[in-house]
Amino acid sequence: MAFSEDELIARYFAPIAGAAGLGLKDDVARLTPPPGRDLVVTVDALVAGVHFFADDPADLIAAKALRVNLSDLASKGAEPLGFLLTLALPPGVAPEWLAAFAHGLGEDARAYRCPLIGGDTVSTPGPLTLSITALGAVSPGAMPARTGARAGDVIFVSGTIGDAALGLALRLGRGPALAETDRDTLLGRYLKPQPRLGLARALAHAHAAMDVSDGLVGDLAKMLRASGVGGELDLREVPFSSAARAYFALDAGGIEIAATGGDDYEVLAAVPEAEASAFAAVAAAAGVPVRLIGRVSEGVSALRVVGFDGEAVRFARGAYSHF
Amino acid sequence: MAFSEDELIARYFAPIAGAAGLGLKDDVARLTPPPGRDLVVTVDALVAGVHFFADDPADLIAAKALRVNLSDLASKGAEPLGFLLTLALPPGVAPEWLAAFAHGLGEDARAYRCPLIGGDTVSTPGPLTLSITALGAVSPGAMPARTGARAGDVIFVSGTIGDAALGLALRLGRGPALAETDRDTLLGRYLKPQPRLGLARALAHAHAAMDVSDGLVGDLAKMLRASGVGGELDLREVPFSSAARAYFALDAGGIEIAATGGDDYEVLAAVPEAEASAFAAVAAAAGVPVRLIGRVSEGVSALRVVGFDGEAVRFARGAYSHF
Repeated sequence: MAFSEDELIARYFAPIAGAAGLGLKDDVARLTPPPGRDLVVTVDALVAGVHFFADDPADLIAAKALRVNLSDLASKGAEPLGFLLTLALPPGVAPEWLAAFAHGLGEDARAYRCPLIGGDTVSTPGPLTLSITALGAVSPGAMPARTGARAGDVIFVSGTIGDAALGLALRLGRGPALAETDRDTLLGRYLKPQPRLGLARALAHAHAAMDVSDGLVGDLAKMLRASGVGGELDLREVPFSSAARAYFALDAGGIEIAATGGDDYEVLAAVPEAEASAFAAVAAAAGVPVRLIGRVSEGVSALRVVGFDGEAVRFARGAYSHF
Repeated sequence: MAFSEDELIARYFAPIAGAAGLGLKDDVARLTPPPGRDLVVTVDALVAGVHFFADDPADLIAAKALRVNLSDLASKGAEPLGFLLTLALPPGVAPEWLAAFAHGLGEDARAYRCPLIGGDTVSTPGPLTLSITALGAVSPGAMPARTGARAGDVIFVSGTIGDAALGLALRLGRGPALAETDRDTLLGRYLKPQPRLGLARALAHAHAAMDVSDGLVGDLAKMLRASGVGGELDLREVPFSSAARAYFALDAGGIEIAATGGDDYEVLAAVPEAEASAFAAVAAAAGVPVRLIGRVSEGVSALRVVGFDGEAVRFARGAYSHF
């Protein structure tokens, strides 16, 4: 690279930093947390060739890295406060790549009111690797943990499920020949997750919540296991986009991809039945569609998945695993 | 690897996690910040073969990664609250390596009262890469920024300078034949930095502070540049250990290595002259030796370094640069 770490930071990242970042001239960020609120902190690491395609547009790589973390905050009902970025760069990263990366990051930081407040930039002989640590604020006691689902709760999910995984399949040349608009929809959902920050108020009604990043079936099973309960998921109730349904019509194998694939970044919530209508109403008022897709039952048992034909189904793979 | 991400976390990292980590069963950490205090957040990324030797003992790699961040908090007078870890693992990392890594991390987390509260574990085809995000608390307005040095301030540094860089030189087979105890001292300082958390109260007297990670000369020049001032550093006043002096006696080139090498993790502070004795007294009471090594002057100019012979010296390399 033609410039030092300090020049790189000053040129590309200082212009998009928030006040807590101290102009990125310090080794630390300093922020005054909103009084009387709890902090929520999350971190995700992403490796080129593993978590994203190295030749994707740099602005989209940056945006997705930030949004993945914002999705974690969103699933906890937290309001974003800021984020830190680490960037391990292989030799020969072009200035244009960095400029596009910083631009994409800056746009989303502004849009989601989550400023860049710090980070670290190093070189690596390996693939480009980045991590984002995001901080958010939540009212004390209001954060729905992953472990809080109880028997009698109903399961909600936001948005539509499976679009990103189907988009990835298309991208890998594995899907059917879809109409171009459907194809673009699915590809776009893979590249640009929409963190559901609008759900913050609704999630005050939830016992448990998490975002769907590793596949609906596997993530719901994880939530139930972590909560020490069982449950049922009805695929007939799962919200699928018209693009996903078009995929299924040409290739029924798409249903399994959609139900078990990853990268949805929708919110999965276990809500007491008595609060279900309040949850749905507050979510709708915030412009986030949610759908009741299952129920939590007594006792630890495997998640039961009911298929389109009303019969129990078992998928070969439950969820995307990193190893 | 023989286990899933969840198993890896449950087996190695959940046992060393603090309460805010929610058993590492969630995607987030939740903590209640100490009321009325500011948050200080820092992150460092480390790549095997770049920032540490891949074949160093795993517990020392872990300890150093945490201590490097604790040093950033220490230089800001912050009290540690907790940290998050990302770990990108190449194929074939042995369970024994992970066990030793987690053990080293857990020991230091306890010793420094800075619990593990979250993280992310992914796989990489590249070298082992990790990042640690550390959170700390500081009294509002008390944090010395890097940019606050003013003309008339005196420059203090803690501990001794250059041991780690000399240890690295020895490790690379470049140094003279030292007595074994001196050699062990220098090698140990490279592997195990001592974050100067004891300086917190003293730093309330400082205008500016940072930790020395990229070399004393370069880091002081950075602080002065960031503060828009100039200054002088007197090498005759810089605290060198007896091991470092033994190195210099056999190889005078060691002086440049010590003054410009990295990995000291001592604290550099610009203190108003009127507060100098208070700063030194509070530091001494906390058991941290500090030494007055220079002065800040009016106007932006290059840092003037005075050598052992009282003449100005100019080093070929100012500071370790990551690119």
